Amino acid sequence: MIKAGIIGGAGYTAGELCRLLLNHPDVEIRFVNSSSNAGNRLTDVHEGLYGETDMVFTDALPLDEVDVIFFCFGHGKSAEFLTTHDVPAHVKIVDLAQDFRLAAPGNDYVYGLPELNRAAIEQAVHVANPGCFATCIQLGLLPLAANGLLGGDVSVNAITGSTGAGVKPGSTTHFSWRNNNMSIYKAFTHQHVPEIRQSLLQLQPEFDGAVDFIPYRGDFARGIFATEVIRLDKDMEAEEIVGMYQEYYAEAAFTHYVDKPVDMKQVVNTNKALVHVDKFGDKLLVTSTIDNLLKGASGQAVQNMNLMFGLDEKAGLLLKPSAF
Amino acid sequence: MIKAGIIGGAGYTAGELCRLLLNHPDVEIRFVNSSSNAGNRLTDVHEGLYGETDMVFTDALPLDEVDVIFFCFGHGKSAEFLTTHDVPAHVKIVDLAQDFRLAAPGNDYVYGLPELNRAAIEQAVHVANPGCFATCIQLGLLPLAANGLLGGDVSVNAITGSTGAGVKPGSTTHFSWRNNNMSIYKAFTHQHVPEIRQSLLQLQPEFDGAVDFIPYRGDFARGIFATEVIRLDKDMEAEEIVGMYQEYYAEAAFTHYVDKPVDMKQVVNTNKALVHVDKFGDKLLVTSTIDNLLKGASGQAVQNMNLMFGLDEKAGLLLKPSAF
Amino acid sequence: MIKAGIIGGAGYTAGELCRLLLNHPDVEIRFVNSSSNAGNRLTDVHEGLYGETDMVFTDALPLDEVDVIFFCFGHGKSAEFLTTHDVPAHVKIVDLAQDFRLAAPGNDYVYGLPELNRAAIEQAVHVANPGCFATCIQLGLLPLAANGLLGGDVSVNAITGSTGAGVKPGSTTHFSWRNNNMSIYKAFTHQHVPEIRQSLLQLQPEFDGAVDFIPYRGDFARGIFATEVIRLDKDMEAEEIVGMYQEYYAEAAFTHYVDKPVDMKQVVNTNKALVHVDKFGDKLLVTSTIDNLLKGASGQAVQNMNLMFGLDEKAGLLLKPSAF
Amino acid sequence: MIKAGIIGGAGYTAGELCRLLLNHPDVEIRFVNSSSNAGNRLTDVHEGLYGETDMVFTDALPLDEVDVIFFCFGHGKSAEFLTTHDVPAHVKIVDLAQDFRLAAPGNDYVYGLPELNRAAIEQAVHVANPGCFATCIQLGLLPLAANGLLGGDVSVNAITGSTGAGVKPGSTTHFSWRNNNMSIYKAFTHQHVPEIRQSLLQLQPEFDGAVDFIPYRGDFARGIFATEVIRLDKDMEAEEIVGMYQEYYAEAAFTHYVDKPVDMKQVVNTNKALVHVDKFGDKLLVTSTIDNLLKGASGQAVQNMNLMFGLDEKAGLLLKPSAF
Repeated sequence: MIKAGIIGGAGYTAGELCRLLLNHPDVEIRFVNSSSNAGNRLTDVHEGLYGETDMVFTDALPLDEVDVIFFCFGHGKSAEFLTTHDVPAHVKIVDLAQDFRLAAPGNDYVYGLPELNRAAIEQAVHVANPGCFATCIQLGLLPLAANGLLGGDVSVNAITGSTGAGVKPGSTTHFSWRNNNMSIYKAFTHQHVPEIRQSLLQLQPEFDGAVDFIPYRGDFARGIFATEVIRLDKDMEAEEIVGMYQEYYAEAAFTHYVDKPVDMKQVVNTNKALVHVDKFGDKLLVTSTIDNLLKGASGQAVQNMNLMFGLDEKAGLLLKPSAF
Repeated sequence: MIKAGIIGGAGYTAGELCRLLLNHPDVEIRFVNSSSNAGNRLTDVHEGLYGETDMVFTDALPLDEVDVIFFCFGHGKSAEFLTTHDVPAHVKIVDLAQDFRLAAPGNDYVYGLPELNRAAIEQAVHVANPGCFATCIQLGLLPLAANGLLGGDVSVNAITGSTGAGVKPGSTTHFSWRNNNMSIYKAFTHQHVPEIRQSLLQLQPEFDGAVDFIPYRGDFARGIFATEVIRLDKDMEAEEIVGMYQEYYAEAAFTHYVDKPVDMKQVVNTNKALVHVDKFGDKLLVTSTIDNLLKGASGQAVQNMNLMFGLDEKAGLLLKPSAF
Repeated sequence: MIKAGIIGGAGYTAGELCRLLLNHPDVEIRFVNSSSNAGNRLTDVHEGLYGETDMVFTDALPLDEVDVIFFCFGHGKSAEFLTTHDVPAHVKIVDLAQDFRLAAPGNDYVYGLPELNRAAIEQAVHVANPGCFATCIQLGLLPLAANGLLGGDVSVNAITGSTGAGVKPGSTTHFSWRNNNMSIYKAFTHQHVPEIRQSLLQLQPEFDGAVDFIPYRGDFARGIFATEVIRLDKDMEAEEIVGMYQEYYAEAAFTHYVDKPVDMKQVVNTNKALVHVDKFGDKLLVTSTIDNLLKGASGQAVQNMNLMFGLDEKAGLLLKPSAF
Repeated sequence: MIKAGIIGGAGYTAGELCRLLLNHPDVEIRFVNSSSNAGNRLTDVHEGLYGETDMVFTDALPLDEVDVIFFCFGHGKSAEFLTTHDVPAHVKIVDLAQDFRLAAPGNDYVYGLPELNRAAIEQAVHVANPGCFATCIQLGLLPLAANGLLGGDVSVNAITGSTGAGVKPGSTTHFSWRNNNMSIYKAFTHQHVPEIRQSLLQLQPEFDGAVDFIPYRGDFARGIFATEVIRLDKDMEAEEIVGMYQEYYAEAAFTHYVDKPVDMKQVVNTNKALVHVDKFGDKLLVTSTIDNLLKGASGQAVQNMNLMFGLDEKAGLLLKPSAF
């Protein structure tokens, strides 16, 4: 059994990691660290765990007793943690924050998108887990980049569930405001655009268009649904492009091309991503959808862990779709 | 034009009062007091007012410039305010908090439920506006009490929208938690039971049963839907009881007996209350429903103001139902 | 009092017309025609009318007893009706279907968007009420077209409530499917694009870009929220463009430019439209939002009627925002 | 591997059975019968199965090729099916309809509530799977009946998700109506009361009170949340009663007593039931909650199958809670 530790354990992604790892056939949670909740039961904080664990949060950090650590900090805190703590070199790390997602001198974290970097992840000791929006949008665009089809600007509209905003209550997650409402935020300036661009450039280095991303606040708790529109520079049949998608994802464990329109609840509560493509004149419309907490965060973290330890990529991730 | 002041102007009930009074044909808002928002525009705080007002919050209290004041404080703060401020004797007060709802020596506030106390409200200078749950539940039970039909315990289950919990974000109004969820709180101990009992006893002084009230948190923003079950002591036809309801509400401006099952959205965004009765054996099942912010708070406050000033009871309250 | 008739009275837009006209100070509903519901009470079909009317549906068509008729048919049925019935020449018509929205030889219907055609509507006997999406999207783009600023393609993403899909139950309005779900339909092919283009060309005849419109099914009942993105051909300051919007809507009764981000519930249950503009590099991002049943249908129909009869444009449309 | 067949495969419970059995370690789905969908892929009908199966519906009934059959018919159709088809005697049957839930001469179906009849289920060839409301309400009341504590009438209020109303669209599952709405149906007359009474009498034969059940339509897709109130005839401490619940469910695989208030999303998308008890004076308030499609239907069907075949009771049912 792989022994896992979770640090920053009181947030949504840590809760979802607990829910996944408690049922993972090859993993045992050794500790869940949360200074603010030390001594409390997991069930006091993370909904849905009654009957599954009696575990309590700890403020201890037995880093040498585990094989893998998941960082569930807020952004910026992972790097800070590493400057003040010694993680043994053999202990693998999956960082769910954005601290190490962008390549930089001295950054040995592999960007943990299996559909892009599976081989590297399998060899990695340190993995930077992608952002939720970034995962969904990249999965819509990677086959185009892989085939050099990205030309001009990419228009992206994507809507996310309230869990994307974290557990701390605030005005934009107040039920009275968000219920049946619709709004946008951080349009054209969202922090996930750089990691999206980094991945697109990895596959199509000459891409120089903009990624114009408008994020919407959805009045649902889980899920991301995205549309990506590009103008095709060359004359191609839709079938040819669909074939590229099918080929690109032929071996993907959780990402599937679907030959008809997809909806978000087809993936909510699973680690799956679904992608569909339509062509209208010279415009290509891609639809992609994931669960923001699973494929967009904790599920992908477990998928990365599976790859890092040579386990079945799907271990612990065969989740019943919720569908409704 | 009646000149109105609103104190405690940043909360939900104050916002709804503004939305109502801005369109009231006989009222002009003279000031909206909020120390925390002084200088901000109403539109910065209260959704939906763009294009309707350029008014700003004030921290001034020109109490002698108005004919009526609405207290939109948290519970307990109205009494406190009155000990530290001099409200001119001729200025009418409608208190939306619970400070003066229960009769007590020296309390000259009339309990402002028009279906119970219309004549007294018309003469009142000070009115204590009923609680939201209390309004809905009483409207289901008053005709029974008026006819001396309450015998043993009354079983009440009522579900409320998230706006009932106020504007301050918290864990039970976090969208991620409340959306698609169901839970109860303060069962058998809710603070509205005493005012319900007071009204029932006003009509049926010998009533000595319990009011067993279970409040539910609804995953919607507006509205209250309640069921009340009593056991009938005497053998009566359903038609006879229905007739009592129809008679009791024959002259009511906003409360209507409906001869088939009702649903909550029939009243949401209106000042109306709908009531329906069914009889099963010796059990009577009453259904009553209101909008918690209107008939359950700000709408009823305006209705009370209309009565206090001799205006048309419906003035400013002919609201388009939202229905969907 | 203006006497009004409603034909096709069982659908959502007819219900909303009833809710509006029952409170309209200058209008009396003479008949609501619905062959399928003849003899039933309005309250049997249209939620929220208890206590407001005892009116019943009729299958009669006393066309000579009214001053104005509202056609609430499904698309195509208005034209069909007119070939088989004689509407007296002096009776004004507001058609809520799309039959007469596009200019054509022999079509004397004025396109009823007051922000575009107020003067013509005031003189019109026949008005074609715009589509819901079309209204929202045009209100976001008209000031640009009026200033000749539309250059290349316009990227439009807009999400609508389930009432947009009509009263007849179906798989995409089944609660179990739509709740917390997200999906798109009719992307790049929606039937409202031609009327949008017609209006843009009316103001900017040389505009030859595409209107790439992706409609989303929202998991809410009412409202439309739209984003429109264009690339600016010339170098302009954001302030200059904002000024154009403010000027264009300076006299508009219900459409307002707002100087900060807007959300949909600010307009739901009102006849208002809110518009906001941001500029990012050479891209302009416009946000516009309306209630699909009011400004997007029945509210705008009443607004057009008000203009056609020389009434106050806002008569009967001073609706309390629901906000939550 | 146990070979399973599903008949009546196009409805919600069949879809959920497919989602469960596709991941069940000991079961292989041999056929999913649906005459109306024969030839279609499961993914065409049951959301969420993309990437998990290429199976198609069949109109064949290879009853001799399977070890167990699940009947997912509408009520009444299971009995009808058995009069016209020969199911081999060794083939086990789990009937999800209500046809065989009530004991009757010649009815050899065991009532499949493991918390009540585990030993009998383990020996059964035929099991009648309990109703959704019936499961939730019984789990709240069984420990009381087991201890002879039920005295007078039981007041039950329970709210269910829209999936309880089935896949066929109708007016009460129309999103526009149900969203943010609240209503009741079949109060005091719901068809699940007889099976609830049968179980209570099995444990406490002298119980002669009524089960006054008011069902509510919830504006969510999945889950049931119920409150049960009884008056205690004898003077007992709350702790003693809690102890009875803990003891009664000590060995239960999926039903847990929780020592603080529970909410519905703690169980949605799992096969778990949570129960909590409070005491107010001589009244006992029980709260119980389940997922209507899992513990209330397909999950319990799999649990029963596990018991009938001597498998681990939890096999295939270790489902990640959705929590949000």
